[in-house]
Amino acid sequence: MRIGIVAPGRPIDQALADRATAFAAGAFPEAELVFHPQCFLSDGGHFAGTDAARASAFLDFANDPAFDALWFARGGYGANRILDAVMPALGPAASAKTWCGYSDGGFLLGALYAGRIGHAVHAPLVSDLRREGGESAIARTLAWLVRRDPTVLEPGLGGQPSAAFNLAILNALIGTPWLPDLTRHVLIVEDLCEPLYRIDRMLFQMAHASQLKGIAGVRLGRMNDIVPNDPPFTEDAQQVIERWCREMGVPFLGAADIGHDADNKVVPFGAP
Amino acid sequence: MRIGIVAPGRPIDQALADRATAFAAGAFPEAELVFHPQCFLSDGGHFAGTDAARASAFLDFANDPAFDALWFARGGYGANRILDAVMPALGPAASAKTWCGYSDGGFLLGALYAGRIGHAVHAPLVSDLRREGGESAIARTLAWLVRRDPTVLEPGLGGQPSAAFNLAILNALIGTPWLPDLTRHVLIVEDLCEPLYRIDRMLFQMAHASQLKGIAGVRLGRMNDIVPNDPPFTEDAQQVIERWCREMGVPFLGAADIGHDADNKVVPFGAP
Repeated sequence: MRIGIVAPGRPIDQALADRATAFAAGAFPEAELVFHPQCFLSDGGHFAGTDAARASAFLDFANDPAFDALWFARGGYGANRILDAVMPALGPAASAKTWCGYSDGGFLLGALYAGRIGHAVHAPLVSDLRREGGESAIARTLAWLVRRDPTVLEPGLGGQPSAAFNLAILNALIGTPWLPDLTRHVLIVEDLCEPLYRIDRMLFQMAHASQLKGIAGVRLGRMNDIVPNDPPFTEDAQQVIERWCREMGVPFLGAADIGHDADNKVVPFGAP
Repeated sequence: MRIGIVAPGRPIDQALADRATAFAAGAFPEAELVFHPQCFLSDGGHFAGTDAARASAFLDFANDPAFDALWFARGGYGANRILDAVMPALGPAASAKTWCGYSDGGFLLGALYAGRIGHAVHAPLVSDLRREGGESAIARTLAWLVRRDPTVLEPGLGGQPSAAFNLAILNALIGTPWLPDLTRHVLIVEDLCEPLYRIDRMLFQMAHASQLKGIAGVRLGRMNDIVPNDPPFTEDAQQVIERWCREMGVPFLGAADIGHDADNKVVPFGAP
């Protein structure tokens, strides 16, 4: 299995790529990791190269039939800025691919799933290797890619179609052509570093988005590093999401084992 | 002219209400300000009373033909949480009213304009009286309400239909039934306390929202107290909005004199 790695948002450094390559060679010898040189570019400190460079690298690998999968190196911010350039330029080779990432990479996963192009999968990023427990994290992505190992899946998926998003990324997709049709899907959301009033506001938009009418239910991944609300908020994240699910008229289906951390589990978009 | 004041988000205190009443009595004797007692409620420190109390107060005054206008006491957060309750419950008296506010109040202005119910107006809040220069700010709202004084209007409106929003509020309305049809309108956005990557992400959503196709152009109000971006961003707010306007295919029409400050000018939704 040949896995191409590109960075639609922020860059990684060569040392991290080397560590990932060495780990994969030991634990998943059937996987070959190929880092696009774009992963190491920097544009103004923020992005892994200009929008044009990131779009071009994504298309290089996405349209190359020699790759079985594309894995996103890192999140951060920036994948949304290449959607308009890359989505109309995907060729036949893209349809055979599995796409792995989460966080900011959800912009691409959402758009690819909206077009039902290949297999979008919410899964740890290469950069999760830097976390404590990071080898276990990236091993989950590799185990899914190489062996379709069901033990790395989020344990509550059951047989139902699902989709997983960072809540801020889901919100930014609402109203655009790149939000997938999630009719009859269980929607799983996680978030990072937001105060509760913003979590509340994002869930308001989820609850009232016309495009999301018809989802089967909502599950709550981890809301990590919640920023203190000023003034203090009257509810916690679970109470907030339960209230919006009631207003939306869909069941709240409990906690999900995903989040911005080393325990983040794999959620293939669609039926597992 | 009888002006009812309610607080859809955060509360004010009696002393501020007394100052506003005294100021209006001196400068606009033809205006009578009536503060709903709900303005002074507190729920958990954040909201001006529970969602039910805020919705009920809004409907009390909105459906009362004895009021000519509703003025929002303060922004903060919370107006979105009463939309589902109040919008279907507005009666005939609401259609004759002018609604004034901005910031979080944009949730209601947007929804009211979406239903073409009365006259929605982006204008200073009662709580702007606390700012340095605050009397000039609230005088603008009163001068528009009482005298339709054209000198308080944002100076670049011309004859074209316009709408003004806090960018975060506009974003949260996208995809919901409460985003108004802004076809052939000039859209003016302002924001407060956001890092540039979030401003960029919000403008991405504006640029690609199917509901906003057909707007005539975009103008940029003030982006106050921009939070330092980590890492530093490669563009400033104007470069960012110019780029997204190009991708959206609508003209960027320059700066607008609105923002979270005492200079904030009046923008009636629709044709002036």
